[in-house]
Amino acid sequence: MSQQSKNVIYAQAGGVSAVINASAAGVIEMAKRHPEAFNKIYAARNGIKGVLEEEIIDVTHLTEDKLDRLKIQPGAAFEACRFDLDTFEENPGQYERILEVFKAYDIGYFFYNGGNGSMVTAQKVADYCTQNGHPMTCIGVAKTIDNDLALSHCSPGFGSAAKYIATSLLEATMDLYSMHNTSTKFFVLEAMGRNVGWLTIAGGLVKNIIPEVPLLILPAERQFNKTKFLNRVRDLINTKGYCVCIVSEGLTDENGNYISIENVEHTHNNAYTQLGGVAHTLSHMVAEEFGCKTHSAIPDYLQRSASHLVSQTDWEMAYRAGKAAVQAALDGLHGVLPVIEVIDTCPLVWRYKNVDLMEVADLEKSVPDEYLTEDGMDITPAALEYLTPLIKGERALAYKHGLPDIRPLEFNYVPQKLTRYIAVK
Amino acid sequence: MSQQSKNVIYAQAGGVSAVINASAAGVIEMAKRHPEAFNKIYAARNGIKGVLEEEIIDVTHLTEDKLDRLKIQPGAAFEACRFDLDTFEENPGQYERILEVFKAYDIGYFFYNGGNGSMVTAQKVADYCTQNGHPMTCIGVAKTIDNDLALSHCSPGFGSAAKYIATSLLEATMDLYSMHNTSTKFFVLEAMGRNVGWLTIAGGLVKNIIPEVPLLILPAERQFNKTKFLNRVRDLINTKGYCVCIVSEGLTDENGNYISIENVEHTHNNAYTQLGGVAHTLSHMVAEEFGCKTHSAIPDYLQRSASHLVSQTDWEMAYRAGKAAVQAALDGLHGVLPVIEVIDTCPLVWRYKNVDLMEVADLEKSVPDEYLTEDGMDITPAALEYLTPLIKGERALAYKHGLPDIRPLEFNYVPQKLTRYIAVK
Repeated sequence: MSQQSKNVIYAQAGGVSAVINASAAGVIEMAKRHPEAFNKIYAARNGIKGVLEEEIIDVTHLTEDKLDRLKIQPGAAFEACRFDLDTFEENPGQYERILEVFKAYDIGYFFYNGGNGSMVTAQKVADYCTQNGHPMTCIGVAKTIDNDLALSHCSPGFGSAAKYIATSLLEATMDLYSMHNTSTKFFVLEAMGRNVGWLTIAGGLVKNIIPEVPLLILPAERQFNKTKFLNRVRDLINTKGYCVCIVSEGLTDENGNYISIENVEHTHNNAYTQLGGVAHTLSHMVAEEFGCKTHSAIPDYLQRSASHLVSQTDWEMAYRAGKAAVQAALDGLHGVLPVIEVIDTCPLVWRYKNVDLMEVADLEKSVPDEYLTEDGMDITPAALEYLTPLIKGERALAYKHGLPDIRPLEFNYVPQKLTRYIAVK
Repeated sequence: MSQQSKNVIYAQAGGVSAVINASAAGVIEMAKRHPEAFNKIYAARNGIKGVLEEEIIDVTHLTEDKLDRLKIQPGAAFEACRFDLDTFEENPGQYERILEVFKAYDIGYFFYNGGNGSMVTAQKVADYCTQNGHPMTCIGVAKTIDNDLALSHCSPGFGSAAKYIATSLLEATMDLYSMHNTSTKFFVLEAMGRNVGWLTIAGGLVKNIIPEVPLLILPAERQFNKTKFLNRVRDLINTKGYCVCIVSEGLTDENGNYISIENVEHTHNNAYTQLGGVAHTLSHMVAEEFGCKTHSAIPDYLQRSASHLVSQTDWEMAYRAGKAAVQAALDGLHGVLPVIEVIDTCPLVWRYKNVDLMEVADLEKSVPDEYLTEDGMDITPAALEYLTPLIKGERALAYKHGLPDIRPLEFNYVPQKLTRYIAVK
């Protein structure tokens, strides 16, 4: 180990995915290969909150078995946080505490696996440390099932969620097809996505298997028009006998209001606004209009934690996101995020390139117009061409007692060295 | 082909499963092996409705490729019906028509893959034909994801749905575990089951992987008590930090009313009563009581059509249900249903035995008391012992473009010989 080597800290933040831990494994394996730069490798529990509270795990010598398990475990193995730091002006004490922890653990590298917002905060933290005599490098590790990360061909985590959504919609279509002649004629699946409809348009992948599927796709990018929707449903039921639908949880009407019973419920009790329920609304709407039986499904967490349906392509993207972040640090970069750049499209060839974290921070990549048909209820061949390679390949998974052999990994925390600190928001 | 051989008709009725077509394949393959008894093999579209309307497919010479596809296709390949015959007194014309069709196609054997009610009707039809000079044998083929079939160790279709439910709950648990420290503390999954909680208790299989999982199980067999429920949720959140829950769609309160927003909605518009939505009700209840973030999922059709998560054990049970039905006919039986008898439990060894259709007709097998803990919110070791072997084994599945390679099979209908008949209810 060279005298210049510093310790590494890795943390996870925000909504999780089925492959985020592959990124963790990528960071750990790559950092271990370079003892000339990296000494100990730590992970913080609960993202930045674990740094503040000094809940730190030494993962330098994780066993092969644990590393292998990490690679297949859905959710955040080190627990993700929904906890945003205050600004320095609001709460300088938080920044001083982080500096104290980083100094105590001789941290020189901070790899943050989170959303745009969290990563920018991490960079600010690193800059603060550097300015205060403790040089820090901060590199982002991309992840989001929403696929709204700008400047990247796609986001690690999206391909697996898309594979889950498309598989589920395909299988439900087979079920509806069976029943439509004497029973249910409409089925709707609700996909996650508050402002963006990437997972919703992934439902269109069913067309690769059943080109003639009577499918309506309602992404968040297009405002809902009840009359036009019911007309399309009527057309499909009349011509094909049934209609399958996929909808974004964040679908809004022409006045920008959410189409969702759930949202109404939550607004009533004023506790918080959580989407989910638009599928029920559409299901009731069709049942009332046509007097037919309808069904709806809301997979919620299932779509982002389906370790049994991971896309091998997505898994590789996630794994290599971790490695690329470490490589960026080795290259002397700071404040960057490795994003996916496409070299060739057929078959898909891609690599990571680094972009400035600040450049992607406030951007949200919506489904572009050229991926949606004029009526906003179907996708174009260009969308299908984009989506298809992202769900390619099935990752092998061990089963135990008939279930995926996944369980929360247990880690030993490093004994705390500093005074106790409670992070409150 | 002997002079005594007669033709066979096979049909599918009621709610479908991921493995019902394996039973179809079992009937077809077994019947083909015995040309001395069976001549042509037909399938009716839409169950008994297809017999009435003479929508008939000759499956005697189905290609190997189509048979292989049939074995993995979820839903009902020949389309299932929710269509009950009238009684003979109400509508003798229906019975005369069926006799006309059976005569025209020289049908001597009727294999009906449906619920108890449909199978009994099929037997009555066969008896009517026999009494009117056209001897008919009727044999039931078991299927139901609900597992409520009496006198059978379990029902073909249940094991795969149970595997889906348990896998989904396990994966969602991993997600919730990741998030609970700073965000969501409660997740609830809604399982199908109007009167019986078999799929709900299948959620308890997660304990085979995570023995300490903070899980509440609310089967339809136990009435819901809000105070006791919230107390248990509080205990688990306080001690483990989070709480996972699985609930039957048909959960009722102490007055026998459904705990379900959906039900209320549907009662309002008076169109029909369809369950689904109790998960949302519980999710809101917990959010309001504890002021925490909660999530809920309603997989609906996804749990009964998940070809990608079929239990190999269940698949074999379904396949052999078809073969056993044909064997019963070869044995000269009539009005029977092959059900699963257990020979040894560890490992599970089972075979089919025949019971009188009338014996099982009006019975509904609920989850027994010894499978539920006293507070009705957990399962016992005996339940786990019962459930575990049923989800064992993963059936291989071909993927195409990253999705299960399943699509509605196309069949050629036999040209109609008779006058047109429209089955109306």
